[in-house]
Amino acid sequence: MSLTLLFAAGQGALDEYRAPLTDALAAEGLDATIATDAPPGSVDYIIYAPASPLQDFAPYTRTKAVLSLWAGVERIVSNPTLTQPLARMVDPSLTQGMVEYVCGHVLRYHLGMDAHIGAPPGTWVADAPPLASERRVGLLGLGALGQACAEALVALGFQVWGWSRRPKTLAGITCVHGDEGLKDILQGTEILVTLLPQTPRTENILDQGNLALLPHGARIINPGRGTLIDDDALLAALESGQVGHATLDVFRTEPLPAAHPFWHHPRVTVTPHIAAATRAASASRVIARNIARVEAGQPLLHAVARDRGY
Amino acid sequence: MSLTLLFAAGQGALDEYRAPLTDALAAEGLDATIATDAPPGSVDYIIYAPASPLQDFAPYTRTKAVLSLWAGVERIVSNPTLTQPLARMVDPSLTQGMVEYVCGHVLRYHLGMDAHIGAPPGTWVADAPPLASERRVGLLGLGALGQACAEALVALGFQVWGWSRRPKTLAGITCVHGDEGLKDILQGTEILVTLLPQTPRTENILDQGNLALLPHGARIINPGRGTLIDDDALLAALESGQVGHATLDVFRTEPLPAAHPFWHHPRVTVTPHIAAATRAASASRVIARNIARVEAGQPLLHAVARDRGY
Repeated sequence: MSLTLLFAAGQGALDEYRAPLTDALAAEGLDATIATDAPPGSVDYIIYAPASPLQDFAPYTRTKAVLSLWAGVERIVSNPTLTQPLARMVDPSLTQGMVEYVCGHVLRYHLGMDAHIGAPPGTWVADAPPLASERRVGLLGLGALGQACAEALVALGFQVWGWSRRPKTLAGITCVHGDEGLKDILQGTEILVTLLPQTPRTENILDQGNLALLPHGARIINPGRGTLIDDDALLAALESGQVGHATLDVFRTEPLPAAHPFWHHPRVTVTPHIAAATRAASASRVIARNIARVEAGQPLLHAVARDRGY
Repeated sequence: MSLTLLFAAGQGALDEYRAPLTDALAAEGLDATIATDAPPGSVDYIIYAPASPLQDFAPYTRTKAVLSLWAGVERIVSNPTLTQPLARMVDPSLTQGMVEYVCGHVLRYHLGMDAHIGAPPGTWVADAPPLASERRVGLLGLGALGQACAEALVALGFQVWGWSRRPKTLAGITCVHGDEGLKDILQGTEILVTLLPQTPRTENILDQGNLALLPHGARIINPGRGTLIDDDALLAALESGQVGHATLDVFRTEPLPAAHPFWHHPRVTVTPHIAAATRAASASRVIARNIARVEAGQPLLHAVARDRGY
């Protein structure tokens, strides 16, 4: 019997996904119909992104799983009507895209590129940067994305520190944890990358007090979640020079409103939530594989634990 | 007996080198005096950079070797008075610095960073870049620096092609060679990095004809030698859009004169010869090691072959 998949990801999103998803389902040997509208009682799986108008999951009594197109599920997991199993998107190409973004912007700060891009004619100040081996990069968050970024930065020669709530051990990386470890990592980090999930415990983790622990002039790259940083505290730290520059990819409201001070601050670079873009081809393969597993009676991959929130 | 080392590298250069060079010589057990001026007949070794006023090597009859502080020796090797053995600088930190520069600027182009740095407020165009695995980077030159850069770019996930005059085989890299290979690599390269030595055969290798082979809008990064590119041909290719952007670290005249069109072109980034800066600490260790080898009767490391010019 044919499966009914409800594609609920906002207007137009299926245009990008229809072909790769059809291919991926066929490759798994699945007979499925992809719909953007279907009677709730007929839906076997929901493929979901928060841009969808679908907010009440209660009528989907037949639905075996909700498969998120996003890695971050905080906008779904807090929905009290969602009782069906929920899978995060863990897409190898998403991880690779994040690694490229993080390595690129860390190297940009490390090499002092902004001073050269658009420099006034004749600005010849031949002060070579230190080597990466003399530069400490700190990562907040050592999940799948954080670990992959940490390993790539180690390969480029940086001194890499990583922080997580609970203890971890990773080759080549100085791992610290807990409240004391957070102080330690912030105090020595010249370039800080935030890759934590959005949970009540990580909200505003970069507040006034924690920003003040960084070395003067530290740079911040946030491709994680907009809520990790207290916006007003960051703007104050940029004003005082405590934070030298920030590159932000995620925001409390997206697109970032044109009037937001981040757009207008000379020491903030805004990127439009591109660090961990889901690529349709590889995401479709991940979703098809997960549906095939559930249909074969195997456990859902990347299932979200509701109590942790990720 | 104490060795006399003439430090001939331009005014003030010894300030940076005195301490690390003294330490490195002591670590090799060498008894040596470092001078910026000494009777030519008394000099055992010359530590040299082209900024030095020393141009006539004939009186240095006792000198066992000239040790270049620069990786590129074209400004020394053509000096007819130089009959003493000449060593290039092959500094592991110089290679590492080059790798960081090349990876940083390749990722800058790959990620489209310039569109975000200083973007007008409200510019939210969420078009994620392709993955590195879908982007071809080409390297002209597969010497020590080119190979190290190629390996680092492969580790970041790029499709890497490399060209050299003679055939080479390197894991993970599509190696091409000779005149036919040059056509092949140029035709498919979106981001081109030039790391060839300066020789009569490489002068203006990127001329009008070869620039025209690149895909329309290709980007060029030149941390190699200023003579590799025909400046006028590059400016014309930038005007027509054939070359989308260029980042240049080396020039025929350095510092690049303030009136040079490269400074004023909106699609050129000038960096002040920082890609392969010699770092005093590691360069001092390389020089002390080479002097100790010669004193022990071993061959000079990194000796320049005059016929090849490098």
